Amino acid sequence: MAYDNLTLHTDKYQINMMYAHWVQGTGNRRAVFDVYFRKLPFGNGFAVFAGLERIVKYIEGLSFGDEEIAYLAQQEEQYRPEFLETLRRFRFTGDLYAVPEGTLVFPNEPLIRVEATIFEAHLIETALLNFMNYQTLVATKAARVKLVAGDDVLLEFGTRRAQEADAAIWGARAAYIAGFDATSNMRAGMLFGIPAKGTHAHAWVQAHSSEHEAFSRYAEVLPDQSTLLVDTYDTLRSGLPNAIKTAKELEQRGKRLNAIRLDSGDLSYLSQKARRMLDEAGFPEVKIVASNDLDENIIFNLKAQGARIDVWGVGTQLITAADNPALGGVYKLVARETGEGMVPVIKISGNPEKVTTPGLKDVYRIINRETGKAEADYIALKDEEDVREGRRIKLFDPVHPYIHKYVDNYEAKPLLQPVYRKGELVGSLPDLEAVRAYHREQLDMFWPEYLRKLNPESYPVDLSTKCWEQKMRLIEEYRA
Amino acid sequence: MAYDNLTLHTDKYQINMMYAHWVQGTGNRRAVFDVYFRKLPFGNGFAVFAGLERIVKYIEGLSFGDEEIAYLAQQEEQYRPEFLETLRRFRFTGDLYAVPEGTLVFPNEPLIRVEATIFEAHLIETALLNFMNYQTLVATKAARVKLVAGDDVLLEFGTRRAQEADAAIWGARAAYIAGFDATSNMRAGMLFGIPAKGTHAHAWVQAHSSEHEAFSRYAEVLPDQSTLLVDTYDTLRSGLPNAIKTAKELEQRGKRLNAIRLDSGDLSYLSQKARRMLDEAGFPEVKIVASNDLDENIIFNLKAQGARIDVWGVGTQLITAADNPALGGVYKLVARETGEGMVPVIKISGNPEKVTTPGLKDVYRIINRETGKAEADYIALKDEEDVREGRRIKLFDPVHPYIHKYVDNYEAKPLLQPVYRKGELVGSLPDLEAVRAYHREQLDMFWPEYLRKLNPESYPVDLSTKCWEQKMRLIEEYRA
Repeated sequence: MAYDNLTLHTDKYQINMMYAHWVQGTGNRRAVFDVYFRKLPFGNGFAVFAGLERIVKYIEGLSFGDEEIAYLAQQEEQYRPEFLETLRRFRFTGDLYAVPEGTLVFPNEPLIRVEATIFEAHLIETALLNFMNYQTLVATKAARVKLVAGDDVLLEFGTRRAQEADAAIWGARAAYIAGFDATSNMRAGMLFGIPAKGTHAHAWVQAHSSEHEAFSRYAEVLPDQSTLLVDTYDTLRSGLPNAIKTAKELEQRGKRLNAIRLDSGDLSYLSQKARRMLDEAGFPEVKIVASNDLDENIIFNLKAQGARIDVWGVGTQLITAADNPALGGVYKLVARETGEGMVPVIKISGNPEKVTTPGLKDVYRIINRETGKAEADYIALKDEEDVREGRRIKLFDPVHPYIHKYVDNYEAKPLLQPVYRKGELVGSLPDLEAVRAYHREQLDMFWPEYLRKLNPESYPVDLSTKCWEQKMRLIEEYRA
Repeated sequence: MAYDNLTLHTDKYQINMMYAHWVQGTGNRRAVFDVYFRKLPFGNGFAVFAGLERIVKYIEGLSFGDEEIAYLAQQEEQYRPEFLETLRRFRFTGDLYAVPEGTLVFPNEPLIRVEATIFEAHLIETALLNFMNYQTLVATKAARVKLVAGDDVLLEFGTRRAQEADAAIWGARAAYIAGFDATSNMRAGMLFGIPAKGTHAHAWVQAHSSEHEAFSRYAEVLPDQSTLLVDTYDTLRSGLPNAIKTAKELEQRGKRLNAIRLDSGDLSYLSQKARRMLDEAGFPEVKIVASNDLDENIIFNLKAQGARIDVWGVGTQLITAADNPALGGVYKLVARETGEGMVPVIKISGNPEKVTTPGLKDVYRIINRETGKAEADYIALKDEEDVREGRRIKLFDPVHPYIHKYVDNYEAKPLLQPVYRKGELVGSLPDLEAVRAYHREQLDMFWPEYLRKLNPESYPVDLSTKCWEQKMRLIEEYRA
């Protein structure tokens, strides 16, 4: 079973379109596809782009082996053998641009741009979307949790409820990018270098003849990492007293208890009560870890109620992005090669927000030179020089184009960076710690009004006048 | 990067507990863990068990290799080298019982029972839950969709919105178990033998100078599989007329158009209008495929409105189980070895529904011999003979124990089947077609009141009197 080969991690219609292009002799025509999403998840004011490392590994690994070819040969489409031989030699020879992982991104701006033969561009659509959609979703959810948790420690605890194994590890990585401190998943720790943390389960307590014996034996083996789970029988009447007894035993050995963990009940009340009991027993440094279906809203409310929690274990709600479990990223053809060179193309739709923005485009983050803060993102055609040269540009809302202003004292940072040129990887991707640091810098670039959890201001993503006029022209042509 | 080795697909606390048991010399004590969930997802009346094939492959592949050992050696816990050497020799030597995939299952009954050393049982908890939770969730969602779709064709289209690659393929498999007919994911097709189906994307239409040219060229290459996507520009004014024109061209070549696909707009109105246009043009056999964020409720409503849709493409809502994206399956210690042999253990909780049911137990489906229908599931201690022998048993509601009845004319089908005995796989798992057929038989065993989508009757899961009394006794002991 060629489980580690992701080449067929694609929709069948991609293979069918590749085949149809190959038969028709149009497969080598160049095409430009934009990847973007239309709507922010969770009512958030921004998303955190993630998934690029996975995409690069996937592209590097593309290879139709014997098993894949044999499988394709038995399809009802009866693909011609020469087509299958073409696939055996497949490799990605195109250009790919992407925003760096950890970047704050917004709806309707290209996050990845693929310029390749249409044959190649079709194959990779499904996997690119699959990786980008999920990882960006979880990084965005994690950024919301980080916003409310401030400097508290955040642990990703979601594996058992994740949507299968890949989600567990790539979700852990996405959470780490957006400010989580550690994961419980050992494989994510091993593969990505994320710190791994863990406590113990109720079963450890149940496996001993008393709770105190269980605590004491655990602390004996792992004194420096001992976090004792205190809710197996009765948090305040049994768990806490036994944890304090164990802390005293450790003290006599010159060690100290690290933390207790609450995993059920009223976390506000129990944490305040536990804090008082620990403090009164002389253990003000013993931390309190909480878990149990936490998300950014529960954490926010617990803090508002005065809960005394130092470390938050966040599982299900984060790893499944439970309140908005899919990001609707799409991959749309925006330009194609014809006899007259590359021409922009459009997709019209009954839903106005689903009409695509045609043409080969770049995205710039417009930074106000006086404040150092981001003012808008600006989508321009690739050959437009005004914005690159820092000349006066008109910013206007593409939905309400009569709302506009001019800016001139700005720095325009291009968001899309080259990742592949002619099929060759350009340089290397930043390591995970650098991605994490870059994400923190990104947050500093935005006014807090765009970042808040509830009812954030809507950050402007504008089209250049040329880009807008081209879109209007193509709509007119198709409506005619 | 040892990506294909899932041995560390576990929470760190499992490794820490294994280590603590190993240091304390208690790791070889036998333990019994039950896997179950407490609450049905989607307000459904049943769940469809899935994930066992994945679990078996995982257990077969367990192996701490050099990379895993090297990673463990650098943890802050500073595990002793002899422990790491013990891990190198790790293999699962225990017993594992599970209900077959495709079985209809209910809250609070053991779906998997692990009897092993506590050392081994800890390692596998996280992965078992991860696989079972996700696959059971999607199979259950798919069963809801199948219920409303009846004999219509169901296509799983979710890969681009799935929570990473594993979810895409194991979700496709779970959907197939519960009655879907095909998937768009080629890798799922290859690995599991699920039929793969596909149409074409908007990009195919945009890549040609006219919609008619695009349709015509596609149908030329793949006449027998041609499903034309008609909403790139204007469904009724452009898409349908061009599709009909293409159907006529195909007819002249002795071929026929397979279907058209609607992917936006009012699917009820458009499908009825499209059906009329196709019929009037002489193509009553051309099918109508619909997609666009469909779920069981939208399909139900579209059918009620008289939509003329033959094939449903279901994506995001199914593959992410969007309205309930996690099943809260748990893995709880219910018995452990002591000097006096195996003894039952309990976990108390502030939440009454989280109190565990102690002891080594079996689950029986009580089939009424007169009706042939399932009457209740009955959880009894392993050594209870009355139910196995078909003697009169008392069924009572464990939440309201005064509600009870006696049954005697029944067949008791044990749900848990041996999968591993002493670490050896017992026989082989059924193939996917057999699982699918078994699932259909399961549905026939239940009254429709338990199966309906909205407000189903609650199917009884009862405890034997002995099992209930033992639980009460242990609660009393811990409360004292």
